[in-house]
Amino acid sequence: MLETIYVINPTCTAHLNHGIDDAVAPLRLKGGPKIETVMLASAGPAIESQGDSDAVAPLVVERVRQLAARPGAAAFVVACFCDPGLHAAREVTQLPVFGIGESGLLAAMTVGQRVGVLSILPSSVPRHWRMYGAMGIADRIGGDRPVGIGVVELESRPDAVDRLVEEGVWLRDSAQCEVLVLGCAGMAPFEAELSRRIGIPVLDPVRAAAAAALGRVLLARPAARGGH
Amino acid sequence: MLETIYVINPTCTAHLNHGIDDAVAPLRLKGGPKIETVMLASAGPAIESQGDSDAVAPLVVERVRQLAARPGAAAFVVACFCDPGLHAAREVTQLPVFGIGESGLLAAMTVGQRVGVLSILPSSVPRHWRMYGAMGIADRIGGDRPVGIGVVELESRPDAVDRLVEEGVWLRDSAQCEVLVLGCAGMAPFEAELSRRIGIPVLDPVRAAAAAALGRVLLARPAARGGH
Amino acid sequence: MLETIYVINPTCTAHLNHGIDDAVAPLRLKGGPKIETVMLASAGPAIESQGDSDAVAPLVVERVRQLAARPGAAAFVVACFCDPGLHAAREVTQLPVFGIGESGLLAAMTVGQRVGVLSILPSSVPRHWRMYGAMGIADRIGGDRPVGIGVVELESRPDAVDRLVEEGVWLRDSAQCEVLVLGCAGMAPFEAELSRRIGIPVLDPVRAAAAAALGRVLLARPAARGGH
Amino acid sequence: MLETIYVINPTCTAHLNHGIDDAVAPLRLKGGPKIETVMLASAGPAIESQGDSDAVAPLVVERVRQLAARPGAAAFVVACFCDPGLHAAREVTQLPVFGIGESGLLAAMTVGQRVGVLSILPSSVPRHWRMYGAMGIADRIGGDRPVGIGVVELESRPDAVDRLVEEGVWLRDSAQCEVLVLGCAGMAPFEAELSRRIGIPVLDPVRAAAAAALGRVLLARPAARGGH
Amino acid sequence: MLETIYVINPTCTAHLNHGIDDAVAPLRLKGGPKIETVMLASAGPAIESQGDSDAVAPLVVERVRQLAARPGAAAFVVACFCDPGLHAAREVTQLPVFGIGESGLLAAMTVGQRVGVLSILPSSVPRHWRMYGAMGIADRIGGDRPVGIGVVELESRPDAVDRLVEEGVWLRDSAQCEVLVLGCAGMAPFEAELSRRIGIPVLDPVRAAAAAALGRVLLARPAARGGH
Amino acid sequence: MLETIYVINPTCTAHLNHGIDDAVAPLRLKGGPKIETVMLASAGPAIESQGDSDAVAPLVVERVRQLAARPGAAAFVVACFCDPGLHAAREVTQLPVFGIGESGLLAAMTVGQRVGVLSILPSSVPRHWRMYGAMGIADRIGGDRPVGIGVVELESRPDAVDRLVEEGVWLRDSAQCEVLVLGCAGMAPFEAELSRRIGIPVLDPVRAAAAAALGRVLLARPAARGGH
Repeated sequence: MLETIYVINPTCTAHLNHGIDDAVAPLRLKGGPKIETVMLASAGPAIESQGDSDAVAPLVVERVRQLAARPGAAAFVVACFCDPGLHAAREVTQLPVFGIGESGLLAAMTVGQRVGVLSILPSSVPRHWRMYGAMGIADRIGGDRPVGIGVVELESRPDAVDRLVEEGVWLRDSAQCEVLVLGCAGMAPFEAELSRRIGIPVLDPVRAAAAAALGRVLLARPAARGGH
Repeated sequence: MLETIYVINPTCTAHLNHGIDDAVAPLRLKGGPKIETVMLASAGPAIESQGDSDAVAPLVVERVRQLAARPGAAAFVVACFCDPGLHAAREVTQLPVFGIGESGLLAAMTVGQRVGVLSILPSSVPRHWRMYGAMGIADRIGGDRPVGIGVVELESRPDAVDRLVEEGVWLRDSAQCEVLVLGCAGMAPFEAELSRRIGIPVLDPVRAAAAAALGRVLLARPAARGGH
Repeated sequence: MLETIYVINPTCTAHLNHGIDDAVAPLRLKGGPKIETVMLASAGPAIESQGDSDAVAPLVVERVRQLAARPGAAAFVVACFCDPGLHAAREVTQLPVFGIGESGLLAAMTVGQRVGVLSILPSSVPRHWRMYGAMGIADRIGGDRPVGIGVVELESRPDAVDRLVEEGVWLRDSAQCEVLVLGCAGMAPFEAELSRRIGIPVLDPVRAAAAAALGRVLLARPAARGGH
Repeated sequence: MLETIYVINPTCTAHLNHGIDDAVAPLRLKGGPKIETVMLASAGPAIESQGDSDAVAPLVVERVRQLAARPGAAAFVVACFCDPGLHAAREVTQLPVFGIGESGLLAAMTVGQRVGVLSILPSSVPRHWRMYGAMGIADRIGGDRPVGIGVVELESRPDAVDRLVEEGVWLRDSAQCEVLVLGCAGMAPFEAELSRRIGIPVLDPVRAAAAAALGRVLLARPAARGGH
Repeated sequence: MLETIYVINPTCTAHLNHGIDDAVAPLRLKGGPKIETVMLASAGPAIESQGDSDAVAPLVVERVRQLAARPGAAAFVVACFCDPGLHAAREVTQLPVFGIGESGLLAAMTVGQRVGVLSILPSSVPRHWRMYGAMGIADRIGGDRPVGIGVVELESRPDAVDRLVEEGVWLRDSAQCEVLVLGCAGMAPFEAELSRRIGIPVLDPVRAAAAAALGRVLLARPAARGGH
Repeated sequence: MLETIYVINPTCTAHLNHGIDDAVAPLRLKGGPKIETVMLASAGPAIESQGDSDAVAPLVVERVRQLAARPGAAAFVVACFCDPGLHAAREVTQLPVFGIGESGLLAAMTVGQRVGVLSILPSSVPRHWRMYGAMGIADRIGGDRPVGIGVVELESRPDAVDRLVEEGVWLRDSAQCEVLVLGCAGMAPFEAELSRRIGIPVLDPVRAAAAAALGRVLLARPAARGGH
């Protein structure tokens, strides 16, 4: 039976699932693990505060615990940039668990020396700096700039991309960042346009984390199973 | 009406309340704020993992929200060394909220250059290092040594103090720590004996945080209210 | 006999004493320690350079030594942001000694993730960065901005508050600070207005240090002495 | 045409190629990129000094330049723990280039808070610390311990694994590491036994880097190409 | 026989030798070591990328090895700000080897708390940040600002000095730097004018490194040889 | 008139002057600056505490101010490892001032990646860590180990060198230091024997600082004055 990577959308916003599904589609290969996006029906519609993040963490952990018991369960991705429940989830399963904040930032560290983060709300920024400190990578962060547009508005606001470009250009020019990470799930659709307009790589952290999960799952296979 | 500082024992272990009550007793002064210890009946008996901490965080936040609405509510102390819900609690009230991990460590930084932490279980240590990193004070931490005795066993195990002394001496001599912090709530009764036997100051973080809360509450009074 | 906390104004500027006295008034409680402000008659009128700070340090230490011998002496606060003599004073007494720089910054670290400092003269800034480094907290400092007005002029200059607001707004918006510390003693009268106009908490470090001293003195009392 | 990931063995030691080929075999999937190991015939037999690393760096860069021109070239892995030529290679191609030191360490950072490194020779250790500093992750490194056995001897020395276990146990117990990285290419065959005997995860950095390359290559495919 | 300090100009640009020769002239004293500038004929005309730096590193090491065998060889200076081959050169000789990046920055750290770097091209900046990290001094670097003028153009471009002044003033005022280092060899002729116009010390790193070499060579003499 | 470098022995212990004089003798060259050791008659016999250091700092500054007015005064060295008065002295003169702690550590950073410090008394160690933090180089310090022998006893105690070797070997083997600095003035006579017995370079910081001063003074000469 093929392995399954579960990408946990820690909100009850169903259409985020579709965006994630599309974003990770290139990681689905014949013979490779399945990638399934699951939603937390009991969660809120978005995570925009430390309180939202704390509230959803136990739900994430519980879902990981349940899914880990399913046949073929192989890895988990927590699809919120502040990685709610990440470390607790690692306690309830031996299977690898990835947070999109952690994995997005680490992936960016293989692309450029100074990493910038494009955040959603100003109130996220201190929470992010705590995460950079906890990860021990604060010296690699050139800046973290919020656009001041809530995650649910992001798609409907016609100026969203312009604002992201504006802050991205600031990070590139004034903070000398060589690569940017989107500081929120669900922004994969902007990845290509932002990279092009800002002129440096912009990474969607959900895709980065799912890719990390894919690699880890494959490496866990017995070597004999490989071959080309 | 006098202000009240609420010390939240984020467990359902009632006798911890009494220990905390005794430990903070010297902070109760005529004309000063009341200090009241509250328990979380719906919480577990102890916090010994990231999962325990994540699980209790929303309960802490909710309790802070409720208590903040009471007349005279003035400050909060979250009495678990990993500070569950601390930053989220700060979002739901303008009143000051203190975590015993944060406040205990910061108090120790006014006593000695290198701070050691006496922890309970080995599994706490990585969680603590994430906290030191998030606080940006990892360079001040000389070491964090677990005694390998669970929090509930601590009182009943006859060798508990000896083990704490053993690790404390190691932190003093091999890690050059000048001051130690007890990495858990409920250890105030050991404070004096440990200081004496280890030979350097040992701080109970609950008392440190309650003292910080007392100061902040008094400073919020209109200056005219003061006087001797 | 009640304990006494001595706040040492390490200058010969007498009216600073009155400001400090007023600022710490809310910390004086019935049954709590006395708080007494003492001046150093042999010191200079202000501390505006490393040389001023070095010159006054031995005087501070000597005064601590003398005061520590008085009956009831319980704690000391050195009321200059660069904490002259702080560590040496800790060598001459077992009683706790607090520096307003150290205590002000640590208090701010319980209020916001990125701490900004409002300094007086540009020449103070490198001295402050050495202190942040020695404290191991440089990663928490979002910025340190001088207003370019000497400490003695501060009260007479009509534009002083406007300049402080200007730099405070810069620290809030451009350096993403969530809390500010006044980088000098004697600025308590500005605390409230600056907090209001800048829109984030602004802490007077003298009050923060005196509050830390109050807590430490109370905790040193035998537990039985407490009670409400 | 399928993409090719080139794993560059920056030595002339041919049998290392076979080890790498076997180690990355599970990453070869139907429909996924090819993974081809290439050797540098003009390089030396092993990289055991800064001089060896510096000498081979331009050869790595030149090989990357040549390979990048081949149809289907998609990503590169430099298979030496000190990442010779990594940053220069990134200048000669837009395709992603991964160093096994960088990728191995970053992968370990998703497994445990404190990362230990099992190195070959004592003289490697300062070179590694420079790399950890340059990567801005030194605070995550619990220790770097050499076994004192040269890379070519490693297979023939009967005590090699015992020495690796000995140092690994030290890193686990005395340095509180939760995960180890093998500080050298060609050690994949030891990975499983070391993990089992040391009792914490041990990562082969070549496999970690190849997995990172696989993910990046897949994510560069147009989304429509995906599907399951 | 007198000792010789070899300053290695790691380019084939002969006239740089003359500039270096002039710049270090004051370090040549009767009875002191000779200082000889050598060029690498097989190197390129300038080092403006990580690739240039990697390419020249083995040539530097080889030249150091050859020169170290000459009678009287006493110390080496590698005259490129990114210190190509520095650590490898230290492996091939017991004689001291200095890099101008390393020595220039360390010298600046004895002049001011926050050090700024005036760089040539924007692409140098990430390379420099890796060096600051590897050196463990990133917290002392206030900023690194490129003027965007290639090293060969520098002398012919009439606006070069104005651009350097412009960035230097920014580093002084916006990044609170107290001292600047020229982030490239061959800029000694600008040192005095830049210091004067920017108003803070500006250090040529070649001179700083040659001075460090002079001191080390003299200290290696038997004490009896000294005297005035 | 020739320049003079003043090495200030910040104690009243005259025979330390002779040791310093001998130690820096090789830096005295025909045509080079004079190096003169001056004692502070009003200082104490040794600096073994923060209090000693604070007490002597203003005396150092005053002496620098006086000496700077002498014709030919060119540079100053403060010959105590905790650099009393260093930064204040830099305020009273435009001439360069070097501290042996600062200069000794920076010199060691050009010799090895991890620097160890051999200290005198355990009580010095926290003071040193504050200095490493203020200098922003704490990540380069592998360890600081005291031998527990006071500075005045050092010459008379027959076991002094053995104790220094013992701690030095620990720093080399357990802390992976590649170079050691003597954490006190007046230990130059031990330098050679310690280097030989410990097997890694051991630097006397007085000599390192005097060498730095020599270089700076020569570089301040007009270029035309040079020549060989």
